[in-house]
Amino acid sequence: MTQPQYDVVAIGNAIVDVIAPADDAFLAQHALPKGGMQLIDAATADFLYSEMGAARETSGGSAANTLAGLAALGKSCGFIGQVADDQLGRIFTHDIRALGVDYRTPVSNGGIPTARCLVMVTPDAQRTMNTFLGASQHLPADAIDADMIRAGGILYLEGYLWDPEEPRQAMRSAIEMARAAGRKIAFTLSDGFVIERHRADFMDLINGGLIDILFSNEAEIQALAEVQGFEKAVAAIASKVPVLVSTRSEKGAIAIAGGERHEVYAAAVEEVIDTTGAGDLFAAGFLAAFVEGEDITQCLKLGAVCAAEIIAHYGARPEADLKALRAHSGL
Amino acid sequence: MTQPQYDVVAIGNAIVDVIAPADDAFLAQHALPKGGMQLIDAATADFLYSEMGAARETSGGSAANTLAGLAALGKSCGFIGQVADDQLGRIFTHDIRALGVDYRTPVSNGGIPTARCLVMVTPDAQRTMNTFLGASQHLPADAIDADMIRAGGILYLEGYLWDPEEPRQAMRSAIEMARAAGRKIAFTLSDGFVIERHRADFMDLINGGLIDILFSNEAEIQALAEVQGFEKAVAAIASKVPVLVSTRSEKGAIAIAGGERHEVYAAAVEEVIDTTGAGDLFAAGFLAAFVEGEDITQCLKLGAVCAAEIIAHYGARPEADLKALRAHSGL
Repeated sequence: MTQPQYDVVAIGNAIVDVIAPADDAFLAQHALPKGGMQLIDAATADFLYSEMGAARETSGGSAANTLAGLAALGKSCGFIGQVADDQLGRIFTHDIRALGVDYRTPVSNGGIPTARCLVMVTPDAQRTMNTFLGASQHLPADAIDADMIRAGGILYLEGYLWDPEEPRQAMRSAIEMARAAGRKIAFTLSDGFVIERHRADFMDLINGGLIDILFSNEAEIQALAEVQGFEKAVAAIASKVPVLVSTRSEKGAIAIAGGERHEVYAAAVEEVIDTTGAGDLFAAGFLAAFVEGEDITQCLKLGAVCAAEIIAHYGARPEADLKALRAHSGL
Repeated sequence: MTQPQYDVVAIGNAIVDVIAPADDAFLAQHALPKGGMQLIDAATADFLYSEMGAARETSGGSAANTLAGLAALGKSCGFIGQVADDQLGRIFTHDIRALGVDYRTPVSNGGIPTARCLVMVTPDAQRTMNTFLGASQHLPADAIDADMIRAGGILYLEGYLWDPEEPRQAMRSAIEMARAAGRKIAFTLSDGFVIERHRADFMDLINGGLIDILFSNEAEIQALAEVQGFEKAVAAIASKVPVLVSTRSEKGAIAIAGGERHEVYAAAVEEVIDTTGAGDLFAAGFLAAFVEGEDITQCLKLGAVCAAEIIAHYGARPEADLKALRAHSGL
């Protein structure tokens, strides 16, 4: 087993976020599932865009956001995900490369545009996501760069990618490549609706011993375990993965590793503006400390610091200097 | 003279801003004129984009930003400016329409993409703009909607549009249309370098009695008057226009109207993040009060409130509720 060239390699949807404030009446009027992520087709995306307010655009995508955080913390990263040859695709590509992430997946030329996520942010800072997957959902298996996968100490996968068929197959082959190279695999459950659609697949991965670090939140871990109650759900899953991480919004986060429980408070935030990316940046902070060999409590603390940064402003990519924030927090 | 259907109709560059933090060393390395606006060609835009950091995109354009502020303050507005049939063009179009601004200029189909402005924001909150004018610079004279111009109580023009040849001609015809319909004309000087290139034209408009309200800042009014010293420059120009407004950053703003001088302090800002759009939003606040028949001091005060909002965050479009801010300020 050679020394990894990247701290983390991730496969994820390559998405540009389109973010606008909205009120609860808007969500109700358009039957948008508050706090969730729904997939929409091109026509729905066009209609919903025409209905929503003036927006700002930033690169997004769950796993890509995590890499943005990791890169900001000085970790070496590689990303695999597909954009189209269009302006949004160039924005996504520019932003992730500008952070120092190695991103070389060929652009698709099938005429389907780059993915976008219409994010409605309500006054309570909750985000409701409506994703047109576009070119991202056609990530072909041969776009999985085997050399990059083998060169990553950790392979990080987002549950969202289980929805479209082509990336699902691509991920299965990536998992095999990583395992064959002796790499660790981290997986984020992403969303309750995604779990409902793919619970059997996710449990197969977990029971098959293919997941080393599982990221979840309170709702997701209960959805996965199919039990009511956070502690019961954690107990049901914790024995099946080496490291289980579960974030609990303002209640902080826990991790169970090797039978031992670790818990941290949420980091203080002056005003919560937009919770988009909170889980993604928590994972970034956790993994940054993890690859340094820090103990699990330190990993959780750095996760909490990164999540606090991202929810204090619109958008799911860090605005503050995460290294400076880390130093300031004594981590 | 019929009652105007729009409070303000503006002609301006239709631009999407691409905003990233940068340090002074980056500006020096790329010979970017700090605090100014330079025009760049497509190749330079591509190169500079590849060099700059991860960015966020928001609709921009000086006059369009002013209309965004006016619309947020409840004023009826129409905009004329040209985008291409591409993703950035659709973003610009969506955003301005979502604010309630009437925008119907046909998209260009000449294969030249929508304009973008690469905005570097230094830690001192100064912005340095690098504009690829793209489709915007080819605004044809026949895109000037005569009915819209005649239906606007005030025609608002940005000096930036004097640089490219086609819009310059389009603006001259718009000025004639507005004057023939008995409308007022407001003009913003935009930028010192623009004034250097077009001083004679600007002075012809002013001396010809074609400008009713002239917006400037300290540097611009001195560049226009070709004299050193703010007060001397104001004295040289004030007698030539019915209303002269000049903003002075943290020193506030003044207006000379009918020989009378009005002056206000800058509104308080907790932390200045990005000064992009400060002048545009000052003009928005000023004009919103002006069309209501408020006295000039009130106009200046509302301008200061709107400028304070825009410099407290990245981007040149308001994020806070300007009507609520106005009410809160007792204006």
